[in-house]
Amino acid sequence: MLTKTSTPLNVRLACREQQFNGTTSGLAAGFVQANLVILPKADAADFLLFCQRNPKPCPLLAISAQPGDTGIAAVATELDIRSDLPSYRLFRQGKLVAELPDIREFWRDDLVTFLLGCSFSFEEALLADGLEIRNISEGVNVPMYRTSIRCHSAGKFSGPMVVSMRPMTPADAIRAIQICSRFPQVHGAPVHFGDPAAIGIADLTQPDFGDAVSIKPGEVPVFWACGVTPQLAIAEAKPECCITHSPGCMLVTDIPNSKLALF
Amino acid sequence: MLTKTSTPLNVRLACREQQFNGTTSGLAAGFVQANLVILPKADAADFLLFCQRNPKPCPLLAISAQPGDTGIAAVATELDIRSDLPSYRLFRQGKLVAELPDIREFWRDDLVTFLLGCSFSFEEALLADGLEIRNISEGVNVPMYRTSIRCHSAGKFSGPMVVSMRPMTPADAIRAIQICSRFPQVHGAPVHFGDPAAIGIADLTQPDFGDAVSIKPGEVPVFWACGVTPQLAIAEAKPECCITHSPGCMLVTDIPNSKLALF
Repeated sequence: MLTKTSTPLNVRLACREQQFNGTTSGLAAGFVQANLVILPKADAADFLLFCQRNPKPCPLLAISAQPGDTGIAAVATELDIRSDLPSYRLFRQGKLVAELPDIREFWRDDLVTFLLGCSFSFEEALLADGLEIRNISEGVNVPMYRTSIRCHSAGKFSGPMVVSMRPMTPADAIRAIQICSRFPQVHGAPVHFGDPAAIGIADLTQPDFGDAVSIKPGEVPVFWACGVTPQLAIAEAKPECCITHSPGCMLVTDIPNSKLALF
Repeated sequence: MLTKTSTPLNVRLACREQQFNGTTSGLAAGFVQANLVILPKADAADFLLFCQRNPKPCPLLAISAQPGDTGIAAVATELDIRSDLPSYRLFRQGKLVAELPDIREFWRDDLVTFLLGCSFSFEEALLADGLEIRNISEGVNVPMYRTSIRCHSAGKFSGPMVVSMRPMTPADAIRAIQICSRFPQVHGAPVHFGDPAAIGIADLTQPDFGDAVSIKPGEVPVFWACGVTPQLAIAEAKPECCITHSPGCMLVTDIPNSKLALF
């Protein structure tokens, strides 16, 4: 039984032994969880450039040292990236073709692994400071929206920035900006607050991904760059092969969240 | 002729020799300018406590080591606090009774000098980052407003928080929050943005102090705690004697603005 006090290694081994295939939210509290993108070497250089040019939606935590490597020692001991997440998605030409507990049979020597920061780390820092995270209070997925903000393109990768939204009072939003500024590798400070239309969002009650949350009187919507952004860019780029985590089923790393803090 | 390249000591000596009695905005660029409050020892402990309890509107830079001291070596070489500002205001029982180029004839052995941070330092940091400061662009004093936010009281000192307002786009406001968070000794991060009514401001076009500035489409008002706050608390407390700088006529210190940065 995995809990918030499980070690990251125990979570990964439970995934490897197919004893766990759920979402990793709340497991191994205090450790960085990462978005996974695996691409063939032929597409990897462009995707790396896309991440470098769009660090807020695509904050790179780590890349495998060589194509075909299944471990990344700097982020997780004994890692086998082919089995150590609860669930994977396999895309062909940008289309989802399978949801899998293990990708060993699809592994190739030319695959490059990208790990990107996710919002769980900054949400933990905000909660620790006493701020309310509405999607957590309401027990739903964070609402996410396509915006009119275009990412900087790189080769075949381009697309809109996707943002997640958390409503806050202005005073809490100011504190959240301070806290998240310490964590650029997990999306960093918000990119916008207030008027949704200013970034091309027509209706906050109709998120493109996730679930709507309530906004109380005196609160403003606060928008963070979101890790769904690279997924849209990949869907548009239609690489011959791409493997990602299933939504919410992240890689639990051995890196303490506090290690990502700038200061 | 004093300019932005004058040294702080040259500004102070020009004041001492009564060759200059204007505002210090723009002089000796890059150096901290300070608000001045001088109170009798009988009121100093309460005022110190008031500053400690309200650090955003009353950020203490320095206090004289002993009552009667006219220098504070840590902030300014060869300082004579009785003459080294362009202009002073003398209050009796909270009432302005004189505007003076020099306070030597009113000096007493029981007077304690307080130096408080001012917004010039953070405005310089924002400008250096490429942000626009509307009151500077429009060549007016920053608009300031009484709010419904009560300061924490200390002895006879109490009153509302006064805020200054600078309009910005949300993206610029987020950047300004990051920059100002590095400078807690000059008011630090904003205390509010957006709806003025949420902090008791009825009409942005009618500031209580300073001048109104234009707010462009897509901008929100951003509010910082303001150094006029302690002046109102002093006016309410009605100390037997109080001496301050005249508006805009600050003490120019030898401290580089960058020395105030937390990181």
